[in-house]
Amino acid sequence: MKALLLIAHGSRKTSSNQEAAELADKLKQQDSAFALVTHGFLELTTPKVPDAVTTLVDQGATEVTILPYFLAAGMHVTEDLPELLAEAKTAYPQVTFTLLEHLGAAQLMPSWILQQASAG
Amino acid sequence: MKALLLIAHGSRKTSSNQEAAELADKLKQQDSAFALVTHGFLELTTPKVPDAVTTLVDQGATEVTILPYFLAAGMHVTEDLPELLAEAKTAYPQVTFTLLEHLGAAQLMPSWILQQASAG
Repeated sequence: MKALLLIAHGSRKTSSNQEAAELADKLKQQDSAFALVTHGFLELTTPKVPDAVTTLVDQGATEVTILPYFLAAGMHVTEDLPELLAEAKTAYPQVTFTLLEHLGAAQLMPSWILQQASAG
Repeated sequence: MKALLLIAHGSRKTSSNQEAAELADKLKQQDSAFALVTHGFLELTTPKVPDAVTTLVDQGATEVTILPYFLAAGMHVTEDLPELLAEAKTAYPQVTFTLLEHLGAAQLMPSWILQQASAG
């Protein structure tokens, strides 16, 4: 069963964390290859990433695609995420984990920005 | 003449700032309604937003669309950007400035994430 895990930084501002949670909810409602979708945070709030991973595995996930919801490849993206990936692989060796590039590196980002700038 | 101004936070990490600059370069190369495209940072690096605005106006911009390249509506988005918008309007009353919602609030964000997650 395929799962999508959206990873956000986490904020002291509740509304920012809520934005990530609502985005995960919207993703759940869309038709996609992912039977399961959830989100996890790196710091400052919960669910933390390892707990989000556990939730997905408990729900039956066998392939987890991890999308870092970050625009820039800061330390979190370059150092923390590979570490969390390694931990997840160790904890659940029967599950396939794929860590994607951060969202800001998406080849389509320029098109997305122009879509948004033209719609706004 | 229509211009697009991409606003990013700015980082101590040069490569993160470079990512924003490269994104602006890619936007310049795309066919769009925007004859001019540039980027500006809120802090930690240059060009700062007011200088980016001046550059666009000096190049002939008469309508400037401002896209906050942020995923969450933190203090920068909710407080700093409206202030910068007001300053720009005061400095250049002959120019129309439109401040869009931050990128994370885009209605299409769930679709973009699924595009990226499926391509990855």
